[in-house]
Amino acid sequence: MTDFNHLFAQRVLGTPSSIVRDILDFSKMPHIISLAGGIPAPDMFDIEGIDEALKVAASFGIDAYQYSLTPGEVSLRDEIAKLLEMRNITTNREHLVVTNGSQQALDLVARSFLDEKDIILVGRPTYLAALQVFSMLGATMEEIDETVTGPDLDALEKRLEEGAAVKALYIVPTFANPTGYTMSEVDRLRLIDLAVKYRFIIIEDDPYGEIRFEGERVPSIYQLAQDHNKGLDYIIYLSSFSKILVPGLRLGFVVAHPEIINKVVLVKQSVDLHTPVLPQLIVASYLESGRIKERIPAISKTYGERCYSLMRALDTHLSDKLTYNRPEGGMFLWGHLKNNINSQDLLKIAAEEGVVFVPGSAFYVKNPDLTTLRLSFATINEEGAEEAAKRLAKAIKRYENER
Amino acid sequence: MTDFNHLFAQRVLGTPSSIVRDILDFSKMPHIISLAGGIPAPDMFDIEGIDEALKVAASFGIDAYQYSLTPGEVSLRDEIAKLLEMRNITTNREHLVVTNGSQQALDLVARSFLDEKDIILVGRPTYLAALQVFSMLGATMEEIDETVTGPDLDALEKRLEEGAAVKALYIVPTFANPTGYTMSEVDRLRLIDLAVKYRFIIIEDDPYGEIRFEGERVPSIYQLAQDHNKGLDYIIYLSSFSKILVPGLRLGFVVAHPEIINKVVLVKQSVDLHTPVLPQLIVASYLESGRIKERIPAISKTYGERCYSLMRALDTHLSDKLTYNRPEGGMFLWGHLKNNINSQDLLKIAAEEGVVFVPGSAFYVKNPDLTTLRLSFATINEEGAEEAAKRLAKAIKRYENER
Repeated sequence: MTDFNHLFAQRVLGTPSSIVRDILDFSKMPHIISLAGGIPAPDMFDIEGIDEALKVAASFGIDAYQYSLTPGEVSLRDEIAKLLEMRNITTNREHLVVTNGSQQALDLVARSFLDEKDIILVGRPTYLAALQVFSMLGATMEEIDETVTGPDLDALEKRLEEGAAVKALYIVPTFANPTGYTMSEVDRLRLIDLAVKYRFIIIEDDPYGEIRFEGERVPSIYQLAQDHNKGLDYIIYLSSFSKILVPGLRLGFVVAHPEIINKVVLVKQSVDLHTPVLPQLIVASYLESGRIKERIPAISKTYGERCYSLMRALDTHLSDKLTYNRPEGGMFLWGHLKNNINSQDLLKIAAEEGVVFVPGSAFYVKNPDLTTLRLSFATINEEGAEEAAKRLAKAIKRYENER
Repeated sequence: MTDFNHLFAQRVLGTPSSIVRDILDFSKMPHIISLAGGIPAPDMFDIEGIDEALKVAASFGIDAYQYSLTPGEVSLRDEIAKLLEMRNITTNREHLVVTNGSQQALDLVARSFLDEKDIILVGRPTYLAALQVFSMLGATMEEIDETVTGPDLDALEKRLEEGAAVKALYIVPTFANPTGYTMSEVDRLRLIDLAVKYRFIIIEDDPYGEIRFEGERVPSIYQLAQDHNKGLDYIIYLSSFSKILVPGLRLGFVVAHPEIINKVVLVKQSVDLHTPVLPQLIVASYLESGRIKERIPAISKTYGERCYSLMRALDTHLSDKLTYNRPEGGMFLWGHLKNNINSQDLLKIAAEEGVVFVPGSAFYVKNPDLTTLRLSFATINEEGAEEAAKRLAKAIKRYENER
């Protein structure tokens, strides 16, 4: 093979493949119980409703297959605006771009704002695929410690006062990935004030916000800015149909000021012209059917049961080895291993024992806490949880004996 | 509205929206005859065949809707490898990435190779959406004159001898967009030699190669490199289902050495995780049905008839005002206006007269030839061609009277 290292771009040199994707491949082996994926539960997919919607979409004939609009199908954008009413957000199609999942939403927004070396603030820890996006653009990622009520805003304010222009802050404020933490309303309002004062963009990523199985709803940052009539121009809201409907159709969206939307559309034009039409028509028709209003509570209830099962199993088999947060929604438990156990090293043994998770180190920009790990409960039933905890306990025992 | 100019990235500041997209919107007005779009003919869409394929795809149930593999569905990659046999290219799924149309293929490949200020060579003129991609990355685009048999290779060789590292060359060698030119086999072989000698990548974009209605087939650069067993590692072949099937499913692909494919997959992971599954299953099933073997000749025949109609109409009404190339396939005529008529200025009058085209200036990096224009014949029937030529003649008469 020809040596291409002088030809490849810096951004792809030395970048390892995503750990999570690698584990995803691994976790498809039949005997493995996977707590690793950010995969939604396939048994909660509303295939019947999607099949109905598919029939409607297919009936569009030629219009379902010709080139279309870069911001997305009008019908879907209108339905998304209606969906957002359920989240107390008032918007319309001029504020929306449909994207290939919220991963693309994030890439398009990042490309619209971040030049090389520009500073973007991220939680410590935060969603690793966001880190990949910012890293590919050569942006400078600075970490702000996450607490159970969101980022440490005193530290943030101090950082902002110190000077050096911050262009944006990326945050999953509700049921964060990987921690499951939810930012308090007070902190959200303070964050908006900081964005206005120091003139930076808040990229609010909200894929799981509706999947709450406990506690009181906290309004999105976008909603709060709208309700309090302050700083709305600075908030870019991203969301997705991956967790509330299905991920394989790859549909997400951006909500922002039309001037920002124009830039995002410009980038999307050069990136892929537009999102495929048929999946958009399917989701538009599905939303129009109203079925989603029953699906979201059903998904939330199931995820809650699965979360409780996993917590019970961990308490039974691992209470002396592992602590974890108690989330009010979403898909993840964030664990801390006791006795300075290294989760990356543990993963190899755990895989041999037939259980996998994501080592927490994947979610840090630098100096990771090596004792952390992310456990997804979305696809695990009660017996699976019990067995996973047993295997994990066995793996930890082996780890401790071997070191 | 808050002033965001200090926050937007350089790449989106001052970048105008694509002229072609703007005209596309405009050309949807009912009374306008559009020679502007690169839109394939919707009356050639095989809706019946697609509906059959859709039924098969939908029968996959959950598997059609869960997260999937970044390089694309295995079944589709295998079918694409079979399709490429018809183009005398031998390959397999390890050499393939499925993308959201060939526009994304181009973006992913460009991001894999081009750092800011890296030099990429392009035809003068060339496909404007490719220029957008390279421009968004901050690459340095250098133009090589296009002749009817492809780029001026003497000028290219001189440029390469002069030094300064060239990373890549982008080319649509068969029925080029916008010129319709096809590069000769001799020149293709010489280009491969130059790529090997000067160690640069050839990005071969082949969306229309199979839509030939006249003359002898010329092998793709990729095929020639394979047949002659030289330089294959340097060739990246891009293609699409937009012109031979439908564009709205947004499916294209990259063929390259697996080491290059790995980098492209890495970028795609961060860009959108993967292409939607359902459209991939539809196209895989469609290809498996074998219908495409009959579609391609049917599309080519129709496009040929439409090309001849438009040429006849232009000869009848505009022979003293316009010269054009005579393409052997594809979708475009490349016109030169006589008497120093400026095609951008003409467009405004032409739109008033009810006909639109793309001014040639859109296809140049700098110093455009303002007398050029691109005329698409793909969607124009015989009466449409006649009427379009009449309107264009009327617009030119008005233009000449007004100046």
